[in-house]
Amino acid sequence: MINDLEKSFEFILELEKLKAIQRRTKPIGLDRRENSAEHSWQLGVMALVLAKFANEPVNIENVMKMLLVHDIGEIDADDVFFFDKAKRENAKEKEIRAVKRIFGILPDDKAKELLGLWKEFEFGETDEAKFARAIDRVMPILQNVNNNKQSWTENGISKEQILDKTAYIADGSEILWESISEKIEKAFDC
Amino acid sequence: MINDLEKSFEFILELEKLKAIQRRTKPIGLDRRENSAEHSWQLGVMALVLAKFANEPVNIENVMKMLLVHDIGEIDADDVFFFDKAKRENAKEKEIRAVKRIFGILPDDKAKELLGLWKEFEFGETDEAKFARAIDRVMPILQNVNNNKQSWTENGISKEQILDKTAYIADGSEILWESISEKIEKAFDC
Repeated sequence: MINDLEKSFEFILELEKLKAIQRRTKPIGLDRRENSAEHSWQLGVMALVLAKFANEPVNIENVMKMLLVHDIGEIDADDVFFFDKAKRENAKEKEIRAVKRIFGILPDDKAKELLGLWKEFEFGETDEAKFARAIDRVMPILQNVNNNKQSWTENGISKEQILDKTAYIADGSEILWESISEKIEKAFDC
Repeated sequence: MINDLEKSFEFILELEKLKAIQRRTKPIGLDRRENSAEHSWQLGVMALVLAKFANEPVNIENVMKMLLVHDIGEIDADDVFFFDKAKRENAKEKEIRAVKRIFGILPDDKAKELLGLWKEFEFGETDEAKFARAIDRVMPILQNVNNNKQSWTENGISKEQILDKTAYIADGSEILWESISEKIEKAFDC
């Protein structure tokens, strides 16, 4: 038991590094880039409050767990901008190696559990994973439409790119997509 | 439904403010103070990996939910240093008003659910709340014993104060307290 506990502590300390991984978005009202740790927290709470908007009845606790661990591979692979397709494909291999290394610090049962959650999110096939992926995509849109399109403007992203690349939100929640796609349109109207 | 969704979005945007609330600890390796949002994320993952070390079998999903929402009141009440007893008592009233305001943005069912989780954590009476409180207390200790006692040194906190004020970790997990109290002793030995 003590040995398992020490391994778990080592893993928890490794998590410190996600607080240094910067995303393109800035938290609304702050003049700094958001990090992947605080982003992951917000997604967990989002899942909790948005549960009833999923297309299919989901095990929301599983959605929360996926969202809390889905970015941990960025500790080695860094955050790659969602709209940078070439970089994203390269980063994927790196991220798989990363999560194997990082979850591998844990006792075997937990390493397996967290890798399972991470893969479920990545494959995006279950109802829970579809809803988790929708939430992960909705958040930076909500930030952008309330923050003068900050990360879209800074990176030259067009309305068409956004609508095209984020339409899979509807696979997890049609009502979310309905509301969010309207907000995207509106943000570019003014 | 759309009305409930808009209320939920408003709440999620309000959460941005927790990213600006600074704690006394610095993330290991970073020369800035930690914020309460990234801290809350780490606690959620901690609960997931430490579940088997609770004194009693706990519903770990409930523990995670409590940990994700327990600091949200700091948006209005600010973070108060754990060892500052006088300030903590004053802040409590402010925090209660804060969570009522902030959770009150949500549709009624969710407002009630999140306030229930927040109160359960605060009262600390259920097995889940005891374990959640233990995890919340273990994290800054783990950071301090691995970061040259940064926040303890900066704020003049003695070993005796720490051992005295954090012993309630054992109410949630005796094995966690056994390991953590040893680490505290060791940190002050050198």
